[in-house]
Amino acid sequence: MYVSVIGGDVKTCKKEDCRIAEEVGKGIASMGAVLVCGGKGGVMEAACRGARSQGGTTIGILPSGSRDEGNDYLTYGIVTNLGAVRNSLVVLNGDVVVAIDGGCGTLSEIALALQYGKRILGIGTWDIEGVEQFHSVEGLLEMLKSV
Amino acid sequence: MYVSVIGGDVKTCKKEDCRIAEEVGKGIASMGAVLVCGGKGGVMEAACRGARSQGGTTIGILPSGSRDEGNDYLTYGIVTNLGAVRNSLVVLNGDVVVAIDGGCGTLSEIALALQYGKRILGIGTWDIEGVEQFHSVEGLLEMLKSV
Amino acid sequence: MYVSVIGGDVKTCKKEDCRIAEEVGKGIASMGAVLVCGGKGGVMEAACRGARSQGGTTIGILPSGSRDEGNDYLTYGIVTNLGAVRNSLVVLNGDVVVAIDGGCGTLSEIALALQYGKRILGIGTWDIEGVEQFHSVEGLLEMLKSV
Amino acid sequence: MYVSVIGGDVKTCKKEDCRIAEEVGKGIASMGAVLVCGGKGGVMEAACRGARSQGGTTIGILPSGSRDEGNDYLTYGIVTNLGAVRNSLVVLNGDVVVAIDGGCGTLSEIALALQYGKRILGIGTWDIEGVEQFHSVEGLLEMLKSV
Repeated sequence: MYVSVIGGDVKTCKKEDCRIAEEVGKGIASMGAVLVCGGKGGVMEAACRGARSQGGTTIGILPSGSRDEGNDYLTYGIVTNLGAVRNSLVVLNGDVVVAIDGGCGTLSEIALALQYGKRILGIGTWDIEGVEQFHSVEGLLEMLKSV
Repeated sequence: MYVSVIGGDVKTCKKEDCRIAEEVGKGIASMGAVLVCGGKGGVMEAACRGARSQGGTTIGILPSGSRDEGNDYLTYGIVTNLGAVRNSLVVLNGDVVVAIDGGCGTLSEIALALQYGKRILGIGTWDIEGVEQFHSVEGLLEMLKSV
Repeated sequence: MYVSVIGGDVKTCKKEDCRIAEEVGKGIASMGAVLVCGGKGGVMEAACRGARSQGGTTIGILPSGSRDEGNDYLTYGIVTNLGAVRNSLVVLNGDVVVAIDGGCGTLSEIALALQYGKRILGIGTWDIEGVEQFHSVEGLLEMLKSV
Repeated sequence: MYVSVIGGDVKTCKKEDCRIAEEVGKGIASMGAVLVCGGKGGVMEAACRGARSQGGTTIGILPSGSRDEGNDYLTYGIVTNLGAVRNSLVVLNGDVVVAIDGGCGTLSEIALALQYGKRILGIGTWDIEGVEQFHSVEGLLEMLKSV
């Protein structure tokens, strides 16, 4: 199973969001799922750090053509040179999508995931119809295991 | 000037939304601006119909590789074969974006437009921070002229 | 009918190529067809100049997100922010493709056009199986009219 | 290091090409490099089979939105829903590109790789200026190790 984690980058991500993202990343790795994300900082980096700490695999789909912009916790970086268009690839690659916090980029990913008919589990993120909202990491991971 | 009009397709667009879209299309053409949209039905078709009725030019950026899927009021159809990824091209091509009604596709376009730093004027659409909301076509067109 | 004109930019395009491109552009406009190209200099600019001199319409599909990079003879510029990926859009939008001179970018467009099953008429360009080669603009335009 | 392997799919790939691709795949894995390809059959599948037989990692960048179209020897499949546009992603992800046999799709990848300034090592493939041609797998792998 591939799980896409979307959320705020270093500009919008708060400490508590990063803590949540790290726990979510640990949970995804513990399930044996591959974590896919946009490969950059904030929520993406924290989730990758959590996954790697449990021996998990992380794939970052990067906006530019250079792997150097990826965070330090990517197992594999996929470069695209597609800018914001890479957002659609991030959600398309998840069998399910987890949204944590996030700004406009995350909102576009949520909307694209809804267009693709993906299931979206959210925590502290945009309140959009179709996003299943959770108030604890435990509840979210419980649901993720049952998908 | 290029104005992107985004909004619900035939599945979500209600009669009143179409009436609004047609008036917006007329206004855009009257300003001498080029109307850009996703090229399909609903809000897109109504806006194009309005623009063409005033002698305006309409460009539809289509998701598939076939011009046949375009609505009857396109002056030019641009095919992309990019599916939902074409949403980013629709908003990128507007100097300003007008959002009317709309479902997930429109929400992704609003979010991508915000990422690109575009100004968005909305009427009866998603209530997202950064979208300037209007309650009348007149007010919206007034603002559009001053951009 | 839409005709895509592909060929060398200012770096590779020689004077004679530009003269040919301008004649081809004139011919396309005289047929009443829309000329589509990559919107930049060299062959693209010369073809657009020819088409506009006959009152034709030219559409440039640009690699960046800024219309400013388009040449002076575009009726409409479509911005993409897709870099080299825009090459596929240039050929996809032609009912037929005309190739004049050209470097690697043109070669990628020829190859993509072949993948899309497009007919390609060439003059002084890459000698690739599937490209119909012409030795005079007259002969090429004659064939174009019969497509 | 990431090495992109491009070449004919099941329609154009001959038995000898597949044997070469499998040897190249083995060599890439033995170097500890990640093998990137278009994820489908023919040369792509043979190269992946070779890499996996040596415990290597293979990443397939697929044209559709479904992982099911990937060959049986992919460690990870990246879905794109971009059709022929995914070709540019295949070569962009290689620090170096190896071309074996191939039709129009491979030609477009060679041309795009040249545009991106990538080094291309070829064997039994398109004779395009800029492609370093080899007549034995040993010679090609020798060069690959020195990159």
